[in-house]
Amino acid sequence: MKDISRNLTMLVDYYELTMGNGYFRKNMKDKIAYFDVFYRKNPDDGGYAIAAGLEQVIEYVNDLHFDKEDIDYLRRRGCFQEDFLEYLRGFHFTGDIWAVPEGTVVFPGEPLMTVRAPAIEAQFIETYLLMMLNHQSLIATKAARITRAAKGRAISEFGSRRAQGADAAILGARAAYIGGVSGTACAIADTAFGVPATGTMAHSWVQMFDSEYEAFKAYCQIYPNDVTLLVDTYNVLESGIPNAIRVFKEVLEPQGITKCAVRIDSGDIAYLSGKIRKMLDEAGFPDCKIVASNSLDEYIIRGLIHQGAQIDAFGVGERLITAKSAPVFGGVYKLCAVEDAQGNIIPKIKLSENVGKITTPHFKKVYRLIGKDTGKAEADLLCVYDETIDDTKPLEIFDPENTWKTKILENFKAVELLVPIFKDGNQVYELPNIEQIRAHCKASLESMWDEIKRFENPHNYYVDLSQKLWDIKYGMIKAQRHK
Amino acid sequence: MKDISRNLTMLVDYYELTMGNGYFRKNMKDKIAYFDVFYRKNPDDGGYAIAAGLEQVIEYVNDLHFDKEDIDYLRRRGCFQEDFLEYLRGFHFTGDIWAVPEGTVVFPGEPLMTVRAPAIEAQFIETYLLMMLNHQSLIATKAARITRAAKGRAISEFGSRRAQGADAAILGARAAYIGGVSGTACAIADTAFGVPATGTMAHSWVQMFDSEYEAFKAYCQIYPNDVTLLVDTYNVLESGIPNAIRVFKEVLEPQGITKCAVRIDSGDIAYLSGKIRKMLDEAGFPDCKIVASNSLDEYIIRGLIHQGAQIDAFGVGERLITAKSAPVFGGVYKLCAVEDAQGNIIPKIKLSENVGKITTPHFKKVYRLIGKDTGKAEADLLCVYDETIDDTKPLEIFDPENTWKTKILENFKAVELLVPIFKDGNQVYELPNIEQIRAHCKASLESMWDEIKRFENPHNYYVDLSQKLWDIKYGMIKAQRHK
Repeated sequence: MKDISRNLTMLVDYYELTMGNGYFRKNMKDKIAYFDVFYRKNPDDGGYAIAAGLEQVIEYVNDLHFDKEDIDYLRRRGCFQEDFLEYLRGFHFTGDIWAVPEGTVVFPGEPLMTVRAPAIEAQFIETYLLMMLNHQSLIATKAARITRAAKGRAISEFGSRRAQGADAAILGARAAYIGGVSGTACAIADTAFGVPATGTMAHSWVQMFDSEYEAFKAYCQIYPNDVTLLVDTYNVLESGIPNAIRVFKEVLEPQGITKCAVRIDSGDIAYLSGKIRKMLDEAGFPDCKIVASNSLDEYIIRGLIHQGAQIDAFGVGERLITAKSAPVFGGVYKLCAVEDAQGNIIPKIKLSENVGKITTPHFKKVYRLIGKDTGKAEADLLCVYDETIDDTKPLEIFDPENTWKTKILENFKAVELLVPIFKDGNQVYELPNIEQIRAHCKASLESMWDEIKRFENPHNYYVDLSQKLWDIKYGMIKAQRHK
Repeated sequence: MKDISRNLTMLVDYYELTMGNGYFRKNMKDKIAYFDVFYRKNPDDGGYAIAAGLEQVIEYVNDLHFDKEDIDYLRRRGCFQEDFLEYLRGFHFTGDIWAVPEGTVVFPGEPLMTVRAPAIEAQFIETYLLMMLNHQSLIATKAARITRAAKGRAISEFGSRRAQGADAAILGARAAYIGGVSGTACAIADTAFGVPATGTMAHSWVQMFDSEYEAFKAYCQIYPNDVTLLVDTYNVLESGIPNAIRVFKEVLEPQGITKCAVRIDSGDIAYLSGKIRKMLDEAGFPDCKIVASNSLDEYIIRGLIHQGAQIDAFGVGERLITAKSAPVFGGVYKLCAVEDAQGNIIPKIKLSENVGKITTPHFKKVYRLIGKDTGKAEADLLCVYDETIDDTKPLEIFDPENTWKTKILENFKAVELLVPIFKDGNQVYELPNIEQIRAHCKASLESMWDEIKRFENPHNYYVDLSQKLWDIKYGMIKAQRHK
């Protein structure tokens, strides 16, 4: 794969630097802190999200270093002392990271990543970690929704021109592929990440020739084995399709080629696609596929299929690459524990008047509880780091807010979601390739009940706390309020 | 400035490559084509947009080249012949580009950029040009709206963690600064583009200490000249503000420092800010500023000011950096002319059943007509490239759709908006620095009537066609329909 990386150590909120210098000045730089990455609400009022972006986080953490010009810049700011700048010169990550593998279905309130590191280091990586996980999880989730709406029809991502910058285009294509689309238009996403890139023609190709017929014929002659003719430059039914059929007959038929396609990028797709299907079938091209594009998303695709539109594949642009209907994935990075001088782990909590914003304290494990009969996930359970779930015995779980709502699980397996990524600053996780990540995402989605995955009023998946963790959390809430 | 660029030549929709190879095969690669970049609708139903992203487009065009591994990738695809790959090895831009300077107020339907180049080259740069102009124009426009809502109060951009990838964070900070915000949290945007970076503390700083008081005191001791205390970790009015006042008295007052600030990031900002102002004033800190953040945008800021909230500055995150309420700037790249073998310019048009989607053909000039008395822009006028507006005489302009709506302009000056950027592949435009761009944006906004800039039902700024251009456009529409 082609390396398109660069040093983004300084892609950091400035306050991470002022706080870092502060910890340094107050002799707190080596105080061990634990931070969780989690999010509070699924995009688009959906029932789940897809975790993505871990590979780029790992790359960032491995590459973390300040260049001389970064140090020079900080010196010019006038508020950082030389001993701190000297410390930054040798700065690298020495802590531990655990994370949910990319492509895993995840839910609000559970850690997608946990960082244990000296305070400065743990604090410093906040901005980039959040940005990367938020962006790719956002796009992977949107892609999973759009793919689901298409019911097995292929989705091509082609939103680069409307992406919010180069990485949004490139890593957006990567995340969309993880989430289930079948390819991208973005060529560099193929060279850098192996996301299959495809594409055929724009309206300008058609306009560049003296006639639509000549434009189509030229294209078929050059690419007889991969033709998708764009048929809406002038008039789909009166010009585009008749010209396409004429060219298929003149160029493809003599070569015995039946695989071909047409694309419509405007107009009433439901209506046009039915007419086109009929025209193509009657002309002897039943294998010719019909591709549709034009501001599509999961809702419009579902509507088209519901109307019986004769579409074999969809091209999806701006509404996928920006997740237009909900373009922010609100992952946050919250302190959940510190270690005292003796190495004891002291849980930390952030209160709020808003119950949903109270954090779950402590260094945690996350178990996914999967029914052995069904293969379906029934609940996730957050435990204290030193707890172990015995899945050979029945387990009672309860709703952390309405604790009288209980459920007994039997015949299940408990799978830990967070896996070790870094240990003492060294990467201990072997990166899966993108096909493996995509397959894991597919399997993770298949392990979820349909009720979780529907678009309207999805079932609320259980994310519960162990009794021990619940006691610690609610004990801390009470203690803080009575201070 | 620090160079964080990389070779993004392959950030291209794959069809630009298949079409490029197609032009090559059909001996059309050197056919001269003209493309316009324009957009159809202002974001957020606003009355204008701010053009941005030109500097990065220039950098991209200058850097355009295929690496060996790009060529190897294309060879592996199996559909590109060796002579084309050989051609790509020496590929660079040899054409002309005109563009509106960054920071200029622009309107739907007018070219923000015009490219004149051999077909392959003009086609190839489409994806990146659109992405860059779309993204930065989107954010600059949003920033201008938010800055306007704040009525002179400073806006800090701090959305990096919710940005759609690294470039969205970095160039988003750049575009936001052009559009009017006063700084960013994103440190690398300062090192790479000179956008002033600032920031002080997160909740984790407060939590890392045994008490809020100790956290505040430590911070004040380290940064007495640049203190903004985050006062909502526990309870704003009962704990945050009393602790802030105590620390200001203990640390700042003895040093004679009166400049300081507090920030609230949750709760009822209108209510809290009034209470905070009173507490600070009564404690003898009338110069202490109050900063607010928490999912703000232009509408919420307007509402807060309308309610009399006592806020001196705003921090704006996700809703600016993703332009959340309208996260797509729909710039398009459309063929408007070609040259025949004799060098005659032949206008091209793209029809559509939807009148708004019909393109304006031909190689064009754009004039902005500015009243000499008022200094305000009255209309933009699109002309054929060989026309010149004589602004010493009265000029009659007319609405291109309702041609009976006419207006006579007198005592105006006509300013050309499109300036030469590349000539024969060479950059002929001297890049302004970011402060100059930002000042130009401010002046351009000031040259617009308030009616254009309001959020609801803004006045529709006139973008008219010269009689000559109108005759050509409507003549072509008629000719095509009667074919």
